[in-house]
Amino acid sequence: MSVVVTSVERPPLAVVDALAEPGVATVHEAQGRIGLLQSHMRPIYRGARVAGTAVTVSIPPADNWMLHVAVEQCGEGDILVVSPTSPCDAGYFGELLACSLKARGVRGLIIEAGVRDVRELEEAGFPVWSKAISAQGTVKETLGSINIPIVCAGQTIEPGDVIVADDDGVVVVRRLDAEDVLQKSKARLEKEAETRKRLLAGELGLDIYGMRQRLKEKGLQYR
Amino acid sequence: MSVVVTSVERPPLAVVDALAEPGVATVHEAQGRIGLLQSHMRPIYRGARVAGTAVTVSIPPADNWMLHVAVEQCGEGDILVVSPTSPCDAGYFGELLACSLKARGVRGLIIEAGVRDVRELEEAGFPVWSKAISAQGTVKETLGSINIPIVCAGQTIEPGDVIVADDDGVVVVRRLDAEDVLQKSKARLEKEAETRKRLLAGELGLDIYGMRQRLKEKGLQYR
Amino acid sequence: MSVVVTSVERPPLAVVDALAEPGVATVHEAQGRIGLLQSHMRPIYRGARVAGTAVTVSIPPADNWMLHVAVEQCGEGDILVVSPTSPCDAGYFGELLACSLKARGVRGLIIEAGVRDVRELEEAGFPVWSKAISAQGTVKETLGSINIPIVCAGQTIEPGDVIVADDDGVVVVRRLDAEDVLQKSKARLEKEAETRKRLLAGELGLDIYGMRQRLKEKGLQYR
Amino acid sequence: MSVVVTSVERPPLAVVDALAEPGVATVHEAQGRIGLLQSHMRPIYRGARVAGTAVTVSIPPADNWMLHVAVEQCGEGDILVVSPTSPCDAGYFGELLACSLKARGVRGLIIEAGVRDVRELEEAGFPVWSKAISAQGTVKETLGSINIPIVCAGQTIEPGDVIVADDDGVVVVRRLDAEDVLQKSKARLEKEAETRKRLLAGELGLDIYGMRQRLKEKGLQYR
Amino acid sequence: MSVVVTSVERPPLAVVDALAEPGVATVHEAQGRIGLLQSHMRPIYRGARVAGTAVTVSIPPADNWMLHVAVEQCGEGDILVVSPTSPCDAGYFGELLACSLKARGVRGLIIEAGVRDVRELEEAGFPVWSKAISAQGTVKETLGSINIPIVCAGQTIEPGDVIVADDDGVVVVRRLDAEDVLQKSKARLEKEAETRKRLLAGELGLDIYGMRQRLKEKGLQYR
Amino acid sequence: MSVVVTSVERPPLAVVDALAEPGVATVHEAQGRIGLLQSHMRPIYRGARVAGTAVTVSIPPADNWMLHVAVEQCGEGDILVVSPTSPCDAGYFGELLACSLKARGVRGLIIEAGVRDVRELEEAGFPVWSKAISAQGTVKETLGSINIPIVCAGQTIEPGDVIVADDDGVVVVRRLDAEDVLQKSKARLEKEAETRKRLLAGELGLDIYGMRQRLKEKGLQYR
Repeated sequence: MSVVVTSVERPPLAVVDALAEPGVATVHEAQGRIGLLQSHMRPIYRGARVAGTAVTVSIPPADNWMLHVAVEQCGEGDILVVSPTSPCDAGYFGELLACSLKARGVRGLIIEAGVRDVRELEEAGFPVWSKAISAQGTVKETLGSINIPIVCAGQTIEPGDVIVADDDGVVVVRRLDAEDVLQKSKARLEKEAETRKRLLAGELGLDIYGMRQRLKEKGLQYR
Repeated sequence: MSVVVTSVERPPLAVVDALAEPGVATVHEAQGRIGLLQSHMRPIYRGARVAGTAVTVSIPPADNWMLHVAVEQCGEGDILVVSPTSPCDAGYFGELLACSLKARGVRGLIIEAGVRDVRELEEAGFPVWSKAISAQGTVKETLGSINIPIVCAGQTIEPGDVIVADDDGVVVVRRLDAEDVLQKSKARLEKEAETRKRLLAGELGLDIYGMRQRLKEKGLQYR
Repeated sequence: MSVVVTSVERPPLAVVDALAEPGVATVHEAQGRIGLLQSHMRPIYRGARVAGTAVTVSIPPADNWMLHVAVEQCGEGDILVVSPTSPCDAGYFGELLACSLKARGVRGLIIEAGVRDVRELEEAGFPVWSKAISAQGTVKETLGSINIPIVCAGQTIEPGDVIVADDDGVVVVRRLDAEDVLQKSKARLEKEAETRKRLLAGELGLDIYGMRQRLKEKGLQYR
Repeated sequence: MSVVVTSVERPPLAVVDALAEPGVATVHEAQGRIGLLQSHMRPIYRGARVAGTAVTVSIPPADNWMLHVAVEQCGEGDILVVSPTSPCDAGYFGELLACSLKARGVRGLIIEAGVRDVRELEEAGFPVWSKAISAQGTVKETLGSINIPIVCAGQTIEPGDVIVADDDGVVVVRRLDAEDVLQKSKARLEKEAETRKRLLAGELGLDIYGMRQRLKEKGLQYR
Repeated sequence: MSVVVTSVERPPLAVVDALAEPGVATVHEAQGRIGLLQSHMRPIYRGARVAGTAVTVSIPPADNWMLHVAVEQCGEGDILVVSPTSPCDAGYFGELLACSLKARGVRGLIIEAGVRDVRELEEAGFPVWSKAISAQGTVKETLGSINIPIVCAGQTIEPGDVIVADDDGVVVVRRLDAEDVLQKSKARLEKEAETRKRLLAGELGLDIYGMRQRLKEKGLQYR
Repeated sequence: MSVVVTSVERPPLAVVDALAEPGVATVHEAQGRIGLLQSHMRPIYRGARVAGTAVTVSIPPADNWMLHVAVEQCGEGDILVVSPTSPCDAGYFGELLACSLKARGVRGLIIEAGVRDVRELEEAGFPVWSKAISAQGTVKETLGSINIPIVCAGQTIEPGDVIVADDDGVVVVRRLDAEDVLQKSKARLEKEAETRKRLLAGELGLDIYGMRQRLKEKGLQYR
């Protein structure tokens, strides 16, 4: 059965916005090394760092009809997250759909499939993380569902979850954890700033993190 | 048997040139969603958009001898299209061959294999779409053929076909279809320009394309 | 048994430095087409070209503890070369470790695994060639070894070998061959400069390299 | 945080058992073409067809400690479903663990990673569906979790879900849908038996399924 | 445009039948090392060796409607050859379609996509060479074409070409070359039988093929 | 430079022979979890378990000339280990070469490339572990080297090293470690036999290996 769930709870936009700054690696660590999408999800251009709330789309292979349905469900601060029910790298998404999403305040697209018009998307400043770049056209024949839980690149994504994406990849933060993960991310950034200073000054991680004793106990031998 | 076919019919250069502008995705759609090479064919640098007529090379694995033979068959407006008879990602092509092709007015290289000197090729403005970047050297021991039909990345390429390539990938247009596909591409660009305006103004594709009734008939449910 | 070999013979720094200029493709050819790492080793950003002496790390999958141990073994002119004992694309390395290595004069990282903080690494000018970009965190539980011979991307790397890396990939030069390969690389560059001039002037490789007779003997037919 | 959930609701064993007979393709179709794990999950030997209830294991890469913990949570009719938090093809599982699981009535293993002792596993009649066959040993250093929802090969698996696996792959049936999917699978088998008879007698699917009119309407042309 | 070409010229059945005996490797060599499909095309079970005439199907991704149309175009001695217009590993084909093809004398299926019911297909003795085994269901919404030239796994296949397939893979022989390739294959088998005898008796290929002199000339050194 | 090293030290044949019995996984563990070749090296048929001494071949891509040279260097108890200098999956090896090797007492082939005639090789009982099965023919134009150290599937192989191969894959044992690894393998088999008995009787690994205390210390929670 194909459904469009029209009401999705989202975390406060201020929290979502603030999660962009620490970025993927820090957020992933701050929440206990979970939530990272598989590394085949790559940005179509370098330099973007965004956070947004997931509008999820479960889509048939090589059929992008539901993306047009999804646009209407998107608003300010959202990120569209799309997964085909069977792997297929066709180009489901291009510049025209991006225009439509930008007009609604959407911040990017995460799609475990292909995308096209990548030059135009970069010029328009609409970032995409995808499995492939492909101009292969798709059909509009079969329904899918919107705002149901999906699996995208190895992670379950619930509508309303927070997506953070940058050059390192994509991470998902559960909606109810967003505030907590933000605080932990900030704490981590602060701590890292201090460590960075010491490392640049030539101190060794071996000493800063106090690793020498445990290495010795494990049996490490210097020759 | 190894042959070099020296006489190839090409479409008018003005038509070929004009096909660069719409680019890969539009040309692919304009000719009915056919002709796209597989998505593992990627540009070695971003930003190039070219069209040219195919000079085809069927080449043994890890042997680039025939590329030197091919240069002589190339002229203004051509694109070299190379496919090994057995998959091998060695670096068949580098900057010196590019110098030679540039001197003859060749616009780029499509190779379902590896290429090297990618920094120099970018500096020289000679675009390449390839399966791999690899410095691995090749030998000059075994013959192949030039200007026979080849299969490159899943598409049959005939000598004289038009190749269009940009950041989205590579598409082939049959020689005799070039003029027709150009007209259809232009028509498509015009139509898209209008749609773009409406989408940016906030209209929905659902309404512009009149999709709501058919979605309902297929059974889509809103909750 | 896990060991850290603390004394490594390195070739003269001047020789190492000079090997950066010819770059990967030329060095690979100059030493007889050997030593190239597999083409899945890609730079995390474009434009770097470095040479350095290998400090090798054999590391357990998804465990980056030994990288902290390795930092202490690195000095001016070194390149860290890391290979997990079982393939795993987690993000073993990020910006903080790069700070530490930069403080010691290290020129880059070669890792047959994943790396993170790629934007920060580019901003810091610390180049990395890796198999993947991944933010996935690792643990610090299991020992490995430093400065033993390892296999990285299909090549044996001995500590003190010279690593040359650029946009074309990564090549290893044996420590004792470094001086000789440098001379051969320079000779090759000179010869190529001359050939380049002739090719740009429109001469054909077929003639410059005198290939026509041998092609005919092999049976090539022109039609 | 690492947890072992010790109480899992399972569907009636009779229902689970009965789901083995229709097999993966029929069950997948009967429940509306959902639930299929990605096709890289292959049986280590051919000919097994099993159904069982999922005991799920989220495991660190290259660390099989939690498998020993998981054994205690397994009982008659279960299937162990294992997913590493980061992709790693080491051999987490071998014949000794299979002995232990067999002693408890477990019917098989689904693991998105590697497995070893495949000859012994076949001789023992303990079927495994895995991403790889690899003898690479793992460590026992880091915790994971048992009987939490996991993603395995692109599908969310909840503890207590029904797993059906055969030579075609692996499919998951939600616990509460098991009875319904069983009935639909049986109905499908009956209908297929009839169709099979007609097809073997030479009738065409075009006629049995009444496709000719719709093909004509879509514009199919015979030449 | 979607077309079904209903009249296809086929080579004499006796010639086709006879091409099964030498098998893929010998036929491939006999016709000058051409025509081999890419090595990802694997048999779903081992031990079959067939030859037949190609009925070709160009099919949309994840849509198997045209397979039902294709059945009607198949007859005694044919092999169905199927290629999706965009890569997609869904399971387009299963046991019911095989029943239908068997009833018409078809000898097997070559599909650059997925197939299901592999156990049943083996029991029925209907061999398939495919890119994947997958139970993923497909839709019946979009047309394709039958008996037009297609590209399958890197080779152009024309309707009426001869397909030979066994445990080594799949090779295509052009329709008009079939008789000639058969004779060359037989000659090759005879010659190999003799060589086999000498090799088993301990003679070396170095001597039988007279390689020692040329190796020496090329510079091979024994130490 | 291409060389054939004709004198290779081998470990005692009795030790080599005895290493076949424990098999790959046990030998790999017994020597400290090292030496395993990458898991893409698969047997062309199931059920073989062999041990032998490595005769190594470094071979150009798609050129099998050196295999004919290598035959002469092989004797009773050897295993041929072949690695191309650049990845290429052509079929370098078939049944005739196997006849020649069998006549000399060679026990199998390890090749990080393709092989053909797999049905005939199985009938002849000549086992092969390879990266691919491919009928693609190769040329005889370029030299390589025999009995030099090579890298095959991620491991350095020295001539005279012991190769153990079975359905789990391939492992290399250094020549001088062979006797020691054999003893450790035997000890391991004995210990496993005992553990197996206890596991089959229903004892848990958690108890046999005394894991409960350490799990608790690490923080594992039961719910």
